[in-house]
Formats: sequence, structure tokens, C-alpha cells
Amino acid sequence: MKVACLTGGGDCPGLNAVIRGLVRTIHNAGGQTIGLLEGWRGAIEGNFIELDPMKTDEILPVGGTILGSSRTNPYKEPGLAEEVVKTFKKLDLDCLVAIGGDDTLGVASKLYSDFNLPTIGCPKTIDNDLSSTDFTFGFDTCLNTVQDAVDKLRTTAESHRRVMVVEVMGRHAGWITCFAGIACSADAILVPEEEVDLDAVCQRLKDRRAAGKTYGIVMVSEGAKLKGDEFITKDAEVDDFGHVSLGGIGKRVAKLIEEKTGIETRDVTLGHLQRGGSPSAYDRVLGTRLGIHAARLANNGDFGKMVALRGLHIVAVPLEEAVGTMRTLYPEFMDEAREFLT
Amino acid sequence: MKVACLTGGGDCPGLNAVIRGLVRTIHNAGGQTIGLLEGWRGAIEGNFIELDPMKTDEILPVGGTILGSSRTNPYKEPGLAEEVVKTFKKLDLDCLVAIGGDDTLGVASKLYSDFNLPTIGCPKTIDNDLSSTDFTFGFDTCLNTVQDAVDKLRTTAESHRRVMVVEVMGRHAGWITCFAGIACSADAILVPEEEVDLDAVCQRLKDRRAAGKTYGIVMVSEGAKLKGDEFITKDAEVDDFGHVSLGGIGKRVAKLIEEKTGIETRDVTLGHLQRGGSPSAYDRVLGTRLGIHAARLANNGDFGKMVALRGLHIVAVPLEEAVGTMRTLYPEFMDEAREFLT
Amino acid sequence: MKVACLTGGGDCPGLNAVIRGLVRTIHNAGGQTIGLLEGWRGAIEGNFIELDPMKTDEILPVGGTILGSSRTNPYKEPGLAEEVVKTFKKLDLDCLVAIGGDDTLGVASKLYSDFNLPTIGCPKTIDNDLSSTDFTFGFDTCLNTVQDAVDKLRTTAESHRRVMVVEVMGRHAGWITCFAGIACSADAILVPEEEVDLDAVCQRLKDRRAAGKTYGIVMVSEGAKLKGDEFITKDAEVDDFGHVSLGGIGKRVAKLIEEKTGIETRDVTLGHLQRGGSPSAYDRVLGTRLGIHAARLANNGDFGKMVALRGLHIVAVPLEEAVGTMRTLYPEFMDEAREFLT
Amino acid sequence: MKVACLTGGGDCPGLNAVIRGLVRTIHNAGGQTIGLLEGWRGAIEGNFIELDPMKTDEILPVGGTILGSSRTNPYKEPGLAEEVVKTFKKLDLDCLVAIGGDDTLGVASKLYSDFNLPTIGCPKTIDNDLSSTDFTFGFDTCLNTVQDAVDKLRTTAESHRRVMVVEVMGRHAGWITCFAGIACSADAILVPEEEVDLDAVCQRLKDRRAAGKTYGIVMVSEGAKLKGDEFITKDAEVDDFGHVSLGGIGKRVAKLIEEKTGIETRDVTLGHLQRGGSPSAYDRVLGTRLGIHAARLANNGDFGKMVALRGLHIVAVPLEEAVGTMRTLYPEFMDEAREFLT
Repeated sequence: MKVACLTGGGDCPGLNAVIRGLVRTIHNAGGQTIGLLEGWRGAIEGNFIELDPMKTDEILPVGGTILGSSRTNPYKEPGLAEEVVKTFKKLDLDCLVAIGGDDTLGVASKLYSDFNLPTIGCPKTIDNDLSSTDFTFGFDTCLNTVQDAVDKLRTTAESHRRVMVVEVMGRHAGWITCFAGIACSADAILVPEEEVDLDAVCQRLKDRRAAGKTYGIVMVSEGAKLKGDEFITKDAEVDDFGHVSLGGIGKRVAKLIEEKTGIETRDVTLGHLQRGGSPSAYDRVLGTRLGIHAARLANNGDFGKMVALRGLHIVAVPLEEAVGTMRTLYPEFMDEAREFLT
Repeated sequence: MKVACLTGGGDCPGLNAVIRGLVRTIHNAGGQTIGLLEGWRGAIEGNFIELDPMKTDEILPVGGTILGSSRTNPYKEPGLAEEVVKTFKKLDLDCLVAIGGDDTLGVASKLYSDFNLPTIGCPKTIDNDLSSTDFTFGFDTCLNTVQDAVDKLRTTAESHRRVMVVEVMGRHAGWITCFAGIACSADAILVPEEEVDLDAVCQRLKDRRAAGKTYGIVMVSEGAKLKGDEFITKDAEVDDFGHVSLGGIGKRVAKLIEEKTGIETRDVTLGHLQRGGSPSAYDRVLGTRLGIHAARLANNGDFGKMVALRGLHIVAVPLEEAVGTMRTLYPEFMDEAREFLT
Repeated sequence: MKVACLTGGGDCPGLNAVIRGLVRTIHNAGGQTIGLLEGWRGAIEGNFIELDPMKTDEILPVGGTILGSSRTNPYKEPGLAEEVVKTFKKLDLDCLVAIGGDDTLGVASKLYSDFNLPTIGCPKTIDNDLSSTDFTFGFDTCLNTVQDAVDKLRTTAESHRRVMVVEVMGRHAGWITCFAGIACSADAILVPEEEVDLDAVCQRLKDRRAAGKTYGIVMVSEGAKLKGDEFITKDAEVDDFGHVSLGGIGKRVAKLIEEKTGIETRDVTLGHLQRGGSPSAYDRVLGTRLGIHAARLANNGDFGKMVALRGLHIVAVPLEEAVGTMRTLYPEFMDEAREFLT
Repeated sequence: MKVACLTGGGDCPGLNAVIRGLVRTIHNAGGQTIGLLEGWRGAIEGNFIELDPMKTDEILPVGGTILGSSRTNPYKEPGLAEEVVKTFKKLDLDCLVAIGGDDTLGVASKLYSDFNLPTIGCPKTIDNDLSSTDFTFGFDTCLNTVQDAVDKLRTTAESHRRVMVVEVMGRHAGWITCFAGIACSADAILVPEEEVDLDAVCQRLKDRRAAGKTYGIVMVSEGAKLKGDEFITKDAEVDDFGHVSLGGIGKRVAKLIEEKTGIETRDVTLGHLQRGGSPSAYDRVLGTRLGIHAARLANNGDFGKMVALRGLHIVAVPLEEAVGTMRTLYPEFMDEAREFLT
């Protein structure tokens, strides 16, 4: 059994845990794993490194991916999918494990249906917006990073009687914003799923100040939209993973809050920090388990599947069902968060 | 609606999140919450403090419990359960929310069945060994604390070519040991659920050294037992939560490994550190959600229930079903861990 | 002995350590301390709170200042200095301890010389740019915050083969940038004290990439200036401590590096994060010692002095000598840093 | 110029910073560095690895030492010092940089005086007990580790109304205990330099409890001695760096406090944790600077010297003067600490 793996799209903590779990489990079953470099680009061009348990033993605590990543998508240009198939044959592979988000997994799904290529998927997105799995690794580490930042900002906000607007990741889905907002006692949580009534937010901030809370925390998704606001970021640009950067909504919200409330307001954009760092225990365990189970699917010849977390267990779901639909934040979470937003 | 809450048993990070979520949600529904002090002792003696959203707003990041805790159990002495009922009436309560482990929740369950006292339970154990809920808060923070410690120990172990034995909590259940063992790339994971073959562990440590790994990490539950070993800790003592301290198994294992392998071996017992600290994002969110849902049960008059996590959702289960059975580590987790233990 | 203290200017970790050390030491000598609120504003308006050892016992680990801060300067408007003197008399004070930066301490010095008001100064600036003291508290915590951030950014930069530009505080002095640059293995350190040759920086980044280092870290002071560059931040604004915000130099540098090198480059501005958080051990000890020694000066009637760190010892220097001169980065530090910048 | 370096004695965070600074600076001057493995053992046996800037670029954040360590001392057995001289000649070395504590540096000093071997010393001890330098690297990281631990223990102690006894390193010198005690608001600080009056400590704990502080923190050096106490640790043993382990004083103190006060008391021994972890910013900068300056001494042919920190500057002192005298805690620090110990 010779297995290749690759990591595609934006990096996040836990990718190396998956790789390590996969390599070790394939090795235990007598197989061998190689790592294609920089996502699908490596699969097209045939660039790879050999992997083995010794080489991957120490990577568990390391953020990012030792394989590099890219947003190359072989289905974006004619003929490239066929190049992947050629690489697969040339390297004499039995299975290809793609670790990535909706885009990366969509390619794996299509290669399986178009060419019967024996692919297996492993879900990865820091945004937690993939359907078919309870949580994705990287999300938990990201929440802890945001929480650490806001715990730091709280006392400086309080010392200066300020409102702090914290812009976090989430262009279309508010998972990070809502969970971090709950974890950080935010006074307002602005997610892309709901049009934001900034006047109501301002009123709440003023009411709380009047009641004696001398500072405020506003958590805002980069993709949040303000009711009746024509804000179009001048610097909007497509980043290398297809995300339109709306960087600037935090600054915009801070400016408007200061104008409307008269309370000194500052903003912080956590940006790339949110993708970084050594994975949390949760993400190390989840990543390792997904890697182990991806290997077990490979060993069983159970292709065209994606490993996923359901409750306490790792299950396999058809790739085809897992991709194509972004999972926005479930209303129940904002409903819970709202207990603190009145 | 007047609700009392109490926290019983060993403290863990996230207790204050529950209290805050409960107080706020009861308040939003027009009710009022008081906090009974030091677990069931406060319920027996009628000691309490008033709680409100302002007072509890800042406690989310704080470890431990603002209410104090004890292992007082009103069913351990005749007449004390009746005292709790008296306090309930005297304070004109409509509901009592007990936040605690099997012992604390068992009392809540009995008070409900014996006296029809309107109790609600919220599961708490750092050991994650309660049935009826996927995870308990505190467990995640504990894992991150152990992980941080082992990440620190790794380089010092490597510099001195040592094996490090890390003793963690878990008298009867290996949840912490197994999850932390996976998260920390342990070379051996010794849990109470499996009799430990120390010779096999020693052989593995020697094999890995021969293969070039110049240090080793052994994760051991305080309740692990060695095959054929007559080890009885001289200092064994019942701690204040009924846990027999086997503190010393780590030291014992380290000594034996050094004797059997000739490799310099040291031990660290993390002890009370594992209960401490500001809760992780996971535990802050889980605790807050449990508090909110306990309040909603109270508001709905849905008594004799315990709030619990299932997948992504908070559900209610009968208290009676939830207590009485310790949940030992599911075999699937050691089975996964074992991929790295060969 | 009745002593008042106040904290002025931008907050930083360690202020509460000073307050606690001062209050306790005054108390031990039989005196009493009050805290004037929001810097010199409290001194002008007579707003204060009573302080005692119990009230301040738990504030050591807390960032910011329990007294609040402002940039009110009584010498900016006629008659306000006299108001401070009136407050001093009205409150029957024996001594006023001002904890702050050059601006705050300048006021203390003038009040001493103009009115013979018994003032004592305690140096505070996160920027470490006060003369007369080796280090100021807050600086060490800030360096650790920057270091943690860059340690997180490193793996995400590496995964995507990127250069990361990290903008840190320092409008006129490069202490944070240089020390953090050394601590974070930066490939370039751009400080206000030296005109930046960005072409040389770009060449170095390309050379290192050619030599196999697949990512880069560029540390840049908010006040760094590029040789031959006409960059004027459109959003330049004076913040509440008189600092002109050049926020944007990081973004500017990132854009130019990407253009000149063709290497994907991203930027992160750490902003207010750098002022936040629980103080490091170094800052807790330094702050506590300064507070103790300020109190001892007060007890000895040794006014018009500032406490300062020299080597291992806390000494007293005349306030007059300590203020008025910004301490820019000593050339020896950039000289040392340069060993890694060739 | 061909330079060898070695790291001897107990490891501590910052060793790799020194190595990296040395290698880079020697390289910049056209020289070459090798690393002798496992302290003086490598110097005796001639085991080494080649070092260069690329190989050492990423080691700055890594705890411990990439060269390994041991407590081999060539002056402990006849003929071994001569072996070091032979290795020096065989490897065609121009200079030997020894990074270590009093024992390691003592060897370097003797080799210089006995054989005129061109040695340079770099001071290393986590205990901060070397004379001739203000601070040693590793000490600051250790303090932060202890502080993080005690910050975690505080809330669990408070929840259970307990006293926590924290045993930290320091057999003969109380630097860690005193500084950590100040940083952690300890209620008692027991150092080897002062005979401990435990009755006074117990009285203070009871007084503080009576005044409303419901928990206590006692910081104790492993080498602290109790007045009138015959305590001899049964498990006393010489560790591999010549330190007699008194591990157990913490447990002993906890037991006595509980007996004498009736307050529930627990103990935690931080042990090897204190040597571990990624170096703090302070230690990364200090280590790097010492490495750079050791290299500059080598480049200048200025042998028989040790680099040292004095205020803000790195200076060179004769090795001979630097070794042989342990620096116990200066009385001024306990005098300051005592403001909080009444």
C-alpha cells in the first residue's frame, strides 16, 4: 500500500497531526506514505517527499503544514486533473489522501467520480464551516488565540474606559465570532449570518456603561454587514485562497461606534495570528484521530469517503455529500449567545 | 422564579462560566439567583450570597468557583437531607441547580425522588468520567495544562537523554491520560483500565532509543496498576473528595524504568496544577451553554434533569439515569492511541 | 503620612504592581494611601478612591491600572496646576506619587519646582525610552507578547512560503522592535533611529530564500521611515497620548516587499495587544520593587525624586534630570542585532 | 578561526540562543564553529557536530541544548584534562567556548591556567547564583513558569480554602524562590539563606485568614531549612549535576502547616518543569547577546574570560574571578519581599 497525502488551502494548526497519524497508521499496516508538496500543485507536478514515522514523530506540536500549501485547483484549468492522474500512476500510488477545505475536498471528490481515483478526504478549515463534521481541527486553537488576545485587551480597555472592536476571521460564517464572543464575554457579536443593527449595539454599549461597566468588547466577523451601510472596503482583494478580504470592517465599526456613542473606541484585527501557533490539545487529538482513520479507510480500500467527527466518534461519509455546501452558524448558538446581548 | 445554585466536589475550570450563564438567563426571564456557599454545606446551613448579572459578569475567565466547594454530602448523615429541604423552603426557592460530579448530582437526584425537591443537575468532573454527556468542562483546560507541561519537559528530557514519567489525574478512568498521551506524543500511556505490562513499555523505550529517539515520555494515570506489582503507596490517603491518592505511581514507574532499562529517568507529578487556571475557550463555551440550558430547564419547570452535551447540542437527561455509573475510557480511544504505542 | 498616587498616559502591565507595592509599604510604616482617578484629571478634580493592603492584594497579576488613566496635563491649561495644589491641600496629603511616562513625570517635576509640592515619580513606558532607568516595566511583557505572536506567525508563514511584516509599537524609539526582532529571529529590523534601505532588506530576503529559508519575518517600528519614501499615512492621527499614529507603515512595507521581491507578503499590526495582558514575572517584580522604593522615599521625606532601576538595584534620581529627554535605542543593540541582518 | 563550544551541567532555556549567536558571529568573521556533544564528555572523547548559521537558525525558540549535556568533569579523574587538550589539537581548534555553571566554567578556567588553552566562558545557571553577572539566562523563563503555575493554583486554592505550598528549585540560593514569591504574591517565602520560623509563618497564615483572605501561597526553596527541625529527606540523593535532592521539603512544610494551623494544605513540586520550555524574550535576547560577545572575544583572541551582564551591557571578566563563589540571594531582595511578609 503506497499512499500520498497533500494539504491544500489556508493552513491551520493540526495539519501536521493528521499527517503524523496517517503516516504512522499506514506504516503499522505495512504501507508507505509520501507527501505531495504545496497542495494540488505537488499532485500536478509530481513534487513530493518521503514520509515515515521517525520523520514525522516530532511534528505534532508544530503549527502549519510540513508539506506546504497552495490554492492550486486542477479543475480550474483544462488538462490538470489528468496530470494528477498521471502523477498517481507514475508514483505507483494506491490512494491519495487530500487534507483541505471545501475546495480541496471538492477536487478529491471529482477525481474519485471522474477517474475513479482512490481518494480519501480529511476536512480542514479554521472557520468550522464544513458540513458533515461536528468540528474541524484548527478551530479550537483559533478560539484560544482570540480568547488570549481579548483577555489581554480587556484590562487596557478598562484602564482607558474604551470600547475595543476585535475583528476575527469569518467571511461567510460566524462560527469563530460567535464562539469567541461567548468565550470572551463580548458585549456585541456581529456575524455574517445576521444583518447588524449598529444602533442597537451602540445603545447596549451606552446602557452598560451607564450601569457601571467601564469598557466594552465588540467581536466582529470580517464578513459582517451593517444594516443600511454602503461600506465597500477600498482595499478589498481576493486573497490566495479565494477569500475576498473585507479587512476593514473592524475599523469601520470602531469609527461608527465612537461617532454614535461618544465613547473612545479602538480596533484590533487579529489577522494571520488566528491561523498560527502550536495546536491546542483538542486539535492535536482530533487531527491525530482523523489521520489514523483516514489511514484505516485507505487500508480497507474504502475510497471516495471523508473522515468526520460525530460526537465522540470518527466516522466516514461520502465525499460527494460532504462538499459543496458551506455550513453557516447554527441559529441555536446565536440564540444562546443572545442571553448576554440584551 | 428564585433559583439557588451550588458547586460541589473538586473544583475545575468552567464552574464560574456555568454560574454566570445560569444567573444571566434566570435574570433575563425575570428571575433571581442566589449562590449557596461551599457545596451542600451551604444548602444544609443556609449560607448563601446574592448573585446578579453585574456581579457575575467578570467571572468567566476566572478558574475555580466563586461559591467555594466542599465534599459535604447530606446523605452521609441522617437528618441532613431534611435540612436542605428546610433551607429550600426558608429561602423561598423554586429550584436548586447542583453543579458537580457523581456524588453531588447523586444528592440532587435523591432529593428530587425522596422529597420531590425541584432540582436540576449540571455535570462537572475534570476526569470526564460521567456518563450521559460527551465531555465535561474542565477536561479540556486540564489537557492543555498537561500538554503545556509536557511540551516544556520535552527539551529538557532531550538535552539529558532522559525518560520523563508524567503522572496525571485519573484514579479509575484514563480519559486525561489517554487524551493527553495522544496530544503529547507519549511513548507509553498507562491507564487504570488496562493492567500495565511494564516490561513491554521498557522494551519499547529501548527500541526507540536504539532507533535514534534520545528521550522518552511516559504518561501515567495516578490509578494505573502494574502487572504483578504489589505496589501499595505508603502515603495513600483519602483526599477531601473521596479520591484515594495513589500519588507515587509516577515515582514508582520512573524508578522501575530506570532499573530495567538503564536509561536515566525522572518523574513529574502535575497534581493540583491540573485543576487550575483560566478555562480554555472550549470550557468557557461549554460551561456557559450548560448554565444557560440549566436556567431554561428551571424556567420551564423541567426538574429532575441534568443538562448534557451531545455532539454540538445541549440536551436534558433524567438525573437518575445520569448518576451512579462511572464512565471509564472507551476502548476505541486506547485502540487509536495504540497506533503510536508499538 | 497620607500619600496619593496616580497613573497617567498609556497603560501598561505592571502599573498595579507599583500601586500594590506602594500601598503596602506606606501601610507598613503606619501611613495611608489614596488613588487619584484617571491620571492628573483626578488630581485636578479631586476624584479618588481609598486604597489599603486588602483591596490591592489581588491586583498584582492584573494588567492595566485599577486607577484608570488619561492624558490630562495640568500644565496644558492655565490654572490647572493650581487646582492640583488645592486638591493636595484639601485631601491633606503629605506626598503625591506620579506613575507615568515623560509627560506625567514632567508635571510631577514642575509641581515640585514651581510649588514645592512633595512629589515622587515612578517611570512607566512600554517603549523603554525613558532615560535614567535601565528598563521600564511593561516592556518585558510587551516583548513576550510580540514573541508569542511571531512564534505563532512563523509556521503559517512557512506553510505558505510568505514574508510576514510585523508592525510593533515605537514611534521614535526602536527598543521594542530591536529586542523583539532579536528574540524572534527577524530577517529585518526597521527602527526609527535608522533610515531604512528597503532594497537591501529585499535583497536579503531573496538571498535567504535562495539559500533555503522559505519564509521571512520583518519587524518594523510604527515610526520607521523608508529612505527616499514619501509615505505619509492618510489616517495619521494623534492618539490620546500624543502619539501620532503611523499605523500603516507595516502594510506599506509589506506591499513594497511583495512588489520588489515577488514573494507573497502579509502584514500583522499587533496594536493594543502590546499594552495588554498579565505582567510577566520580570515586570511584576520590577513594578513591586519600584512601588516599595517610592514609598520608602515618601517615608523618608525624600521628594522631587524618581525611582529607577540600575543593574540589580533600585535607586533614586532627581525628577528634573530624569525627564525631558527621550532615550532612543542605544547603537550597541542594533550593532548586536546586525550580526543576524547580513 | 575554528571554535568549539559545549554546554555542561543542567540544561536551561536560552542555551540554544547562545549557540546560535556564537555560530553566527564566528561565521560573520569568517570562522567556523563545531559543537562538542554532551558537555566535557564530548571534549574528552572528541565527539562533535558541525554547526553553521543555517543549521542553527531555527533553534532560538527551542528549550534545552541541541548539543546535549552531562556533568562529566575532566578534573575529576586524572588524565582527562589532557584528553581535552588532545582533542583541542586534533580538531585544530583556536578556541573553546564553555557554556555552563560554576563547575563547567571552573574547568574552562583551569584549562586556561594549567595548559594555556584558549577558553572562553559563558555563564549558565537557572538558579541565578553565579557571581560576576547580574542575571543568568534561564532564570527569567523559570520565574515565568513558576508564576504561570501559581496563577493556576490560586483559584483552586481559593475554591477549597486551602494553603498551597509550592516547592521550587534552589538548594543553596533563594533567587528563584524570592523573585517568584514576589511575583506570585506569596504569603511566605522560605529560602535557604534564612532559617525558617514556621510558627511565625503559620501565625501569618491564620491572621490573613482571619482578615478574610481565604487561601494562602507558600513558596519554598528545595534547600530551605526549618528552625529546630531534624528533617532529613529519606530520598535524598545526588542528582546528575551534583545537587542533593531535598525534594520533600515542600511536602514536609505542607504537613506541618496543616497540623499547626488546622487549615487544609496541599503541596506541588514543580521539579523539572522549571528547566523546560521555550525561552522568554528576556532569555532569548540575553542568550543571543552572550553568544555574540563570546564570539567577539574569540575573534579578538581575548581568552580566559567570561562574558557577563552588567546593567544593560555585556562585559568580559576574568574566568578565574568569576568562578568558585556561589552568589546567594542579596539581603536587599528579601528585605523588599518582607514588606509583604508581615
